[in-house]
Amino acid sequence: MSFDRMSQLFVRTLRENPADAEVPSHTWLVRGGYIRRAAPGIYSWLPLGLKVLAKIEAIVREEIEAIGAQEVHFPALLPREPYEATGRWDDYGPSLFRLHDRKGGDYLLAPTHEEMFTLLVKDLYSSYKDLPLVLYQVQTKYRDEARPRAGILRGREFIMKDSYSFDVDDEGLARAYDRHREAYIRIMERLGLEFVIVKAMSGAMGGSLSEEFLAIAPNGEDTFARSPGGYAANVEAVTIPVAQPVDASDVPAPTTIHTPGAATIATLVDAVNDVNPRPDRPWSGSDTLKNVVFMVKSPDGTRSPLIVGLPGDREVDGKRLEAALFPDEAEPFADADFAAHPELVKGYIGPVRLDGKKAVAFLGEKSETKLRYLVDPRVVEGTSWVTGSNAPDEHLVNVVIGRDVTPDGFIDVAEIREGDPAPDGSGPLTLDRGVEMGHVFQLGKKYAEALGLKVLDRNGKLVTVTMGSYGFGVSRAVAMVAEATCDDRGLAWPRQVAPYDAIIVIAGKGEDVVAEATRIATELDAAGAAIVLDDRTVSPGVNFADAELIGFPTSVIVGRGLADGVVEVRDRAAGTSAHVPVAEAVSVILAAIHGDSEELDLP
Amino acid sequence: MSFDRMSQLFVRTLRENPADAEVPSHTWLVRGGYIRRAAPGIYSWLPLGLKVLAKIEAIVREEIEAIGAQEVHFPALLPREPYEATGRWDDYGPSLFRLHDRKGGDYLLAPTHEEMFTLLVKDLYSSYKDLPLVLYQVQTKYRDEARPRAGILRGREFIMKDSYSFDVDDEGLARAYDRHREAYIRIMERLGLEFVIVKAMSGAMGGSLSEEFLAIAPNGEDTFARSPGGYAANVEAVTIPVAQPVDASDVPAPTTIHTPGAATIATLVDAVNDVNPRPDRPWSGSDTLKNVVFMVKSPDGTRSPLIVGLPGDREVDGKRLEAALFPDEAEPFADADFAAHPELVKGYIGPVRLDGKKAVAFLGEKSETKLRYLVDPRVVEGTSWVTGSNAPDEHLVNVVIGRDVTPDGFIDVAEIREGDPAPDGSGPLTLDRGVEMGHVFQLGKKYAEALGLKVLDRNGKLVTVTMGSYGFGVSRAVAMVAEATCDDRGLAWPRQVAPYDAIIVIAGKGEDVVAEATRIATELDAAGAAIVLDDRTVSPGVNFADAELIGFPTSVIVGRGLADGVVEVRDRAAGTSAHVPVAEAVSVILAAIHGDSEELDLP
Repeated sequence: MSFDRMSQLFVRTLRENPADAEVPSHTWLVRGGYIRRAAPGIYSWLPLGLKVLAKIEAIVREEIEAIGAQEVHFPALLPREPYEATGRWDDYGPSLFRLHDRKGGDYLLAPTHEEMFTLLVKDLYSSYKDLPLVLYQVQTKYRDEARPRAGILRGREFIMKDSYSFDVDDEGLARAYDRHREAYIRIMERLGLEFVIVKAMSGAMGGSLSEEFLAIAPNGEDTFARSPGGYAANVEAVTIPVAQPVDASDVPAPTTIHTPGAATIATLVDAVNDVNPRPDRPWSGSDTLKNVVFMVKSPDGTRSPLIVGLPGDREVDGKRLEAALFPDEAEPFADADFAAHPELVKGYIGPVRLDGKKAVAFLGEKSETKLRYLVDPRVVEGTSWVTGSNAPDEHLVNVVIGRDVTPDGFIDVAEIREGDPAPDGSGPLTLDRGVEMGHVFQLGKKYAEALGLKVLDRNGKLVTVTMGSYGFGVSRAVAMVAEATCDDRGLAWPRQVAPYDAIIVIAGKGEDVVAEATRIATELDAAGAAIVLDDRTVSPGVNFADAELIGFPTSVIVGRGLADGVVEVRDRAAGTSAHVPVAEAVSVILAAIHGDSEELDLP
Repeated sequence: MSFDRMSQLFVRTLRENPADAEVPSHTWLVRGGYIRRAAPGIYSWLPLGLKVLAKIEAIVREEIEAIGAQEVHFPALLPREPYEATGRWDDYGPSLFRLHDRKGGDYLLAPTHEEMFTLLVKDLYSSYKDLPLVLYQVQTKYRDEARPRAGILRGREFIMKDSYSFDVDDEGLARAYDRHREAYIRIMERLGLEFVIVKAMSGAMGGSLSEEFLAIAPNGEDTFARSPGGYAANVEAVTIPVAQPVDASDVPAPTTIHTPGAATIATLVDAVNDVNPRPDRPWSGSDTLKNVVFMVKSPDGTRSPLIVGLPGDREVDGKRLEAALFPDEAEPFADADFAAHPELVKGYIGPVRLDGKKAVAFLGEKSETKLRYLVDPRVVEGTSWVTGSNAPDEHLVNVVIGRDVTPDGFIDVAEIREGDPAPDGSGPLTLDRGVEMGHVFQLGKKYAEALGLKVLDRNGKLVTVTMGSYGFGVSRAVAMVAEATCDDRGLAWPRQVAPYDAIIVIAGKGEDVVAEATRIATELDAAGAAIVLDDRTVSPGVNFADAELIGFPTSVIVGRGLADGVVEVRDRAAGTSAHVPVAEAVSVILAAIHGDSEELDLP
């Protein structure tokens, strides 16, 4: 092995930002010559990018093999049948790349390989003595994202480490889960990423206990909630407890109020304070019951209306709704849908109508409209609401849940707000953003049951195996480490993932400059450091700008200082610089590479 | 790191041969727990298989990086456009996996990445100073084979190393080609594969000079021809020189002979010897001109007949025909086709018909039928033939090429036979079989021209870059090394690619046996050897059979011999065994692993 030369390295830095860049890591990885876009959400990896990817992959492998995981590799191109057996062929909807082979057989590009892992273990194992087992893969996965974004942060072809644990009982699963959780903590720490572990939804995967490792990032796609008392959850996973029933025995029967033009919560609040003021305090949005209609599409394509009732001062959170309905999907209730349902009066929908003075349930599967009606966990038995009357320009007051109408159940999809109480009573929530790097969860028996993975237990009885699933975004980690460390001049890799340990810049034309730079590169290379020598005949300004853009942790400038017997050593991340006697250069740089020096505040 | 334990290794050997196994490597790789079939031609890799794959991949990478290649990684899922620009979207026909994304865009699973390499270099490079350049990838590729076979030997999802050279001139290309050729020789030698380098066709790739590295294998798919004088070519690439024209001035005009029922060459030869004997020697098959009709389908789907004229004693070689017509494909001329072409009389087709006594050209684009007519290089001007008359039960004699009919050109698709002269005059050919492991060839400017890859030369003029392409079958090499080394008991890996260096078998129940085996495993592991300890509680017969089936190069049996102070050391490939004093065991095994001992004929 030998050091590399910049003049021969397949890298060209770019001056222009890519037109589609939304986040800094995307900009700098493209401009620094790490990745290039091949199609929306699909990227080619250049030599620099592959080096960072390999280093991150090695860290992930080390930690996951340290807990006893054994590597396997599955095809990316797979037949439909196993995914049909678990329902995921349909559940994945348009996110699944599907294709036919030359004989017309149905195939897919695997988004994840639960089915294959389960079937493989079923193929080879048959006894409790074979377990526990942890298998893993590091592979390219495919997901036809509706909105691929942010370069390799959310692509359609990406690299994941996925491991799966197989155990005979819940205790075994809990042990495997804990071991993976610890391994993921070590991985995030080694990558230098600030992170939080939050309760998560399990999405398409099924299963129960589930946590996400989020890298904290202000431009992250995921929002999570934390409390001072230690509660932490992805907002999709925040579970608002169902409130205690309220005594409504002294609430009068519903009556109609005239609210012409009050088709929004704000205008309704004004109207009800105007025509029906109450003595103790004014009406507010939280006294109103907002009823939002969606069209719900199931994976098989059938569509049916769903009405969500929630306090008027809250909006439905799209992501929480998506998570709650999965694998069904919610679509807006279109004008055509309203036209097909004349009983739903836009802006005046409510769960009850008055027949003379008698309250009649209007929403709910057992009501006269038979329309499905789910309510927020705060809309419990005995609560009383101002809400739509199902007639234009009129609302009802004193509609009491349980007395006047019985919803079909609860749906926990209202937005979470800063200051909301944590569900576990641990204090008010704050909201922050992050990027999901890892996901650990106890899948349980969903896949084992669907695919018949059973083993004989100690007593000779067949028991269904219980599984855990543990994913980590390897290519995403390249972007995330870049995102967390870059600045306005480019990338600033932490040493453990940098493509090279140092660049030695020939910043002058003298023979002695070339000779000295080459000697330093040679000696560092011999000492095991990954070195690139910038031997290009360009202006020093270009050398320096490229070194900063590409993000070498250490730059060594061999140039005019040589006359005074020194070279300049720059630390990219710290932004520091030191002049080092030529004779000490190699040892100083090695100390920096190995983290033995204090930010180069040296002679 | 530590040694592995067989009781925990994710491997189960199988007793039954897989139903679809056609070659021994397939059988043993499945039975030994290396791979498992997921779909036709699509395999999962188990831990043992991945270890062998990684070792072979490392050898290939080492040799290819030693000649200066830099690694990149392209998406497997690619948009149609670049492949449209080079014509390969169509040329690949049904072998290309095609799919749509959720927006209806056309995508493919890349069978090779010429377009992407070319576009990437075009994106980043612009000057002759940037060249030469060699890039490579080690990636999963996709080809929808009509007949996937032999396990991972010819799969539909497989792993290739592909490199590409970029040069400004032919000399540069020749240098890059030679360097790759040398690297491939080293790779084949390091893998221990017996091989031959043969002239090759370039297939779908375009280009000119092209050689294949074939691993010699009696059940190989490729047939190659060799001469004592050093000629070697894939039969598809054997080029029969066009024969010298013959003086036909004394050949009489064609005449009709009656040959009732003589619709085959054999019956024709009998008939012509019977009704029209010649004085000097009997007529033979080589005096007859056989005319075979095919329907040729072009990639755009259009179909047109092609008639191939060749000496009657030779058959058309399907693979040579396929190679000659590519990207068009030949199909048999069906009964319906004959019905649509009543001018073609099955069994009596010939290039000439007699109009009274006048010979009229019947085949050829300028003839009255306008049917395309190509002939074997032996069917040259002045040669005289017995051939069909285009009327039932009649043939013509004395049909002279150039005088009575002028074919549209030559097509070199007749079978090559043992004993045929080598085209370069280096002696008679022998035929053998092999498996293509590598392919080096000078692509030239085909892709650079199609995609506009030009650089400024020394004089500031734009010149088109010339490219070389160098593929190597990495996953195929796993199968081929297995195929070349296995026997009737299983696999017998050469040490350089074996999944482990040795297995230490606990062949007894005493505590001392377990302790001694564990000590040996621990010490070998500490010395850097990859060791598995067979700690299973099964009968020694099962241990030994598994060790042979899986193919560990060295097995160490710790058992009854321990009472006499010895362990048994077996060499899988050599089939030898030695009893070694316990105290010397570790050093003897390490010597074996490092190849320092002579097949264990030790104390």
